[in-house]
Amino acid sequence: MTTVSDVADWWANGICRMEPGVVELRGIPVQELIGSTGLVATIWLMTRGELPDPREAALLEAALVASVDHGPQAPSIAIARMSITCGVGLNNAMASGVNALGDVHGGAGEQCVELLAEIVALEASGEALDAAVATVVARWRERSRYLPGYGHRFHPVDPRRDPLLALVDRAVADGVVAGRHAAAARAVEVELNRGRSKPVPMNIDGATAVIYAELGFPAPLARGLFVLSRSVGILAHAWEESTQGRRNKGPVPPSILPTYRPG
Amino acid sequence: MTTVSDVADWWANGICRMEPGVVELRGIPVQELIGSTGLVATIWLMTRGELPDPREAALLEAALVASVDHGPQAPSIAIARMSITCGVGLNNAMASGVNALGDVHGGAGEQCVELLAEIVALEASGEALDAAVATVVARWRERSRYLPGYGHRFHPVDPRRDPLLALVDRAVADGVVAGRHAAAARAVEVELNRGRSKPVPMNIDGATAVIYAELGFPAPLARGLFVLSRSVGILAHAWEESTQGRRNKGPVPPSILPTYRPG
Amino acid sequence: MTTVSDVADWWANGICRMEPGVVELRGIPVQELIGSTGLVATIWLMTRGELPDPREAALLEAALVASVDHGPQAPSIAIARMSITCGVGLNNAMASGVNALGDVHGGAGEQCVELLAEIVALEASGEALDAAVATVVARWRERSRYLPGYGHRFHPVDPRRDPLLALVDRAVADGVVAGRHAAAARAVEVELNRGRSKPVPMNIDGATAVIYAELGFPAPLARGLFVLSRSVGILAHAWEESTQGRRNKGPVPPSILPTYRPG
Amino acid sequence: MTTVSDVADWWANGICRMEPGVVELRGIPVQELIGSTGLVATIWLMTRGELPDPREAALLEAALVASVDHGPQAPSIAIARMSITCGVGLNNAMASGVNALGDVHGGAGEQCVELLAEIVALEASGEALDAAVATVVARWRERSRYLPGYGHRFHPVDPRRDPLLALVDRAVADGVVAGRHAAAARAVEVELNRGRSKPVPMNIDGATAVIYAELGFPAPLARGLFVLSRSVGILAHAWEESTQGRRNKGPVPPSILPTYRPG
Repeated sequence: MTTVSDVADWWANGICRMEPGVVELRGIPVQELIGSTGLVATIWLMTRGELPDPREAALLEAALVASVDHGPQAPSIAIARMSITCGVGLNNAMASGVNALGDVHGGAGEQCVELLAEIVALEASGEALDAAVATVVARWRERSRYLPGYGHRFHPVDPRRDPLLALVDRAVADGVVAGRHAAAARAVEVELNRGRSKPVPMNIDGATAVIYAELGFPAPLARGLFVLSRSVGILAHAWEESTQGRRNKGPVPPSILPTYRPG
Repeated sequence: MTTVSDVADWWANGICRMEPGVVELRGIPVQELIGSTGLVATIWLMTRGELPDPREAALLEAALVASVDHGPQAPSIAIARMSITCGVGLNNAMASGVNALGDVHGGAGEQCVELLAEIVALEASGEALDAAVATVVARWRERSRYLPGYGHRFHPVDPRRDPLLALVDRAVADGVVAGRHAAAARAVEVELNRGRSKPVPMNIDGATAVIYAELGFPAPLARGLFVLSRSVGILAHAWEESTQGRRNKGPVPPSILPTYRPG
Repeated sequence: MTTVSDVADWWANGICRMEPGVVELRGIPVQELIGSTGLVATIWLMTRGELPDPREAALLEAALVASVDHGPQAPSIAIARMSITCGVGLNNAMASGVNALGDVHGGAGEQCVELLAEIVALEASGEALDAAVATVVARWRERSRYLPGYGHRFHPVDPRRDPLLALVDRAVADGVVAGRHAAAARAVEVELNRGRSKPVPMNIDGATAVIYAELGFPAPLARGLFVLSRSVGILAHAWEESTQGRRNKGPVPPSILPTYRPG
Repeated sequence: MTTVSDVADWWANGICRMEPGVVELRGIPVQELIGSTGLVATIWLMTRGELPDPREAALLEAALVASVDHGPQAPSIAIARMSITCGVGLNNAMASGVNALGDVHGGAGEQCVELLAEIVALEASGEALDAAVATVVARWRERSRYLPGYGHRFHPVDPRRDPLLALVDRAVADGVVAGRHAAAARAVEVELNRGRSKPVPMNIDGATAVIYAELGFPAPLARGLFVLSRSVGILAHAWEESTQGRRNKGPVPPSILPTYRPG
């Protein structure tokens, strides 16, 4: 027979404990966090279950800052700006922007963490790095011509990539992270560019994936972290648009009629 | 005649400038932010247009940390947990959680900023604080029996309130913020509790509204900031739920059939 | 003390009764509907609690057919098309399109039903139609320069308007509906165009609002019905886009960079 | 060089043609549809490009009617009800419900169409039906222990199944559809139940998948059609909840606190 206790169990969770007058996050009273713990450390605590080392938090923070925005050519940003002109709340416009961060728009970091994890696992089983890279890249290439984390249709060199990798290198030097995923990511780049005149460089998704993977985040959380980061840009754009007074903003000026092509 | 330049203008914005190899956020090359600027300062930059004083950022950070989660009784959290069991991406589950942060669930902070702004404006026009409070509270009471930022159906005293107000007091003492909205918020509490045996204390939405208002955020951004904060809890819960393997999680255990009442 | 029965009551509803082997919709076993009852009659049953007269259903059907699509200049359609290129499910892309049908994009019908209801109520209290119209239009004009259901930034005459009004007239002649909201809507048009050289004609939202109001739907359901109708176009567009293979479709061709204007 | 014509091409589509005063849906002026074409035929027109035979439309209509609701134990319905109590628009609450119709909650029909298509294709290549079924079922079983369209955790026999299959049988007898997918679906059922005491019957997703497949809808549209159908129930429930005045409805009565289990 079902009991009220079963109902409470149905919503059991290990993240937040509530009682009247009590809010505990991962076992820590919330008032102990307020004023002493940063937002990024709190993100880590909530998703991982414990507080990070400050140098780990700093590395994560750099990745989160790097991805906040990529302008209104990004569908997520354009969607949020269009939505807010339709008479919905700021949260609704943000939701539709976030909703677009799917496998193609928001999933490259997640997929790149998987890619790097496969290489590091092969290496851990005794294979040489170059051989592991060749095996794994070939495996991914069979499935898709896009290798997540590499190449960009817009930036020849992404300005966010080198600063992030420099921070990873310093963290490796300081013993904060082990550096295996960073090495794997660079070896993939070498493999990709062998014999090519036009290089396919590691992009922002690759560089942040290196950080997430080095810090031990499971692949799906890479997408979750990207959502948190890009939500900042989505908010800023939706808010700016809301102050400009457009109504029902379409994708192009109203004077431009879409072409019709019977399909 | 419409031109390609009109099309570029249609998406003009003051937040993000892109060129091949260039990403500038509010006029600052993104690579200058990575590693030197925190996530909270970046949130400020993106929404306000310039970087904050570090003590301003610290106060904002405390408010953002305080609101990350309130457990699965909160509809936003429950919705995200249910959604992720339905076979959608983590970003989709987060979107539906954020989508629920409407006027009633996520709007109290925004409304409380408006309330405090009305009081401070009246005071600035020469009225005494107590009189301004009485006028504005009466005006809001006409529209609704809920005064945004006060009272809680669950916590007799919200554990997040006093730590936040203590940080505001310190910021006032340090000259970081002026303290007028904090004073107004406390005067509202006194007004509300006059002659009541059971007090209606300022709640978390009130305490964070004080911070957002003291820091100069327009009211709608209070909701936007809350969305950023609660997205952390939404992510943590959706992710935890996704690791537990439920499929199509309903609101109550499947053995409990809803009652039918012909309407 | 809370009991399991309280939990069942928490989800009590008057729409759907379930038992193992039983699904009843508004008291009717679902198997009695399948094959004998149309989709539009089922929409009516689900939202109103009983089945409509077939001539009522036919009038509702015409309104639902009329609004299915208005091309990709409509933000809802563009958003769905952009979303589906981001690697989300068809349901997720449809959700973001529907999410944009807010007060400005999807609310005109709802607001127009309110407008017409106010006029009809004044008339019912004894005022002459023209006077009631003048009073109510003046009241709405104070709040906004847009009168919901009138004018269109694109169509000088909306091709959907006259066929819908002709069906309403026939339904009035047949005694299916009373015709008061239709008369009010036309009187508003006369009032609006008095002394104007360029007319402000009733638009599709006005014409469908007349139908929803004549059929007795409460105003908020006018938006709900529009969502059901436009979801058809949203699906068709998202599906078409998904067959075309674009990835991360931005609002304009990638060669067009948005202009940057420091805000 | 990019031109304005390229911009118009960027949004080219084969569904809706607009000019001032003109709305054409799949080449048909919308005014020719209003009053003469039903909603279900319009759904077919919009997604398939041409109008159906009335008997095809009738079969589709039965499938759409059958799936409108399954009560608030369904996450999509519960999410919409919870969302509307949070102070968002009816369209926003509906969007979050639809957003939950993912691979697990809304995808069984789509997957079952794929399953049946694989069997029919094998059969078309010369294999006997039973052998084709055995091969394909084995292939799907390798990937998951759930076979889409079969079994139900709630209904021993789904009351919607037999009426739908009876309509299919009649359509086969009348030469409206060929019946190959229906035969395949029944053969799967026989295969599944061989040697089992507790049968695993075809469920509603299986029965509607048979209809969608017989009518020639590509698999992904099966999910799209289900979204249109379930949106009716989502609207009815969100609307009913909105009339009941709850605020921030959680998944269980507020007196029931979730259990905390440090993860």
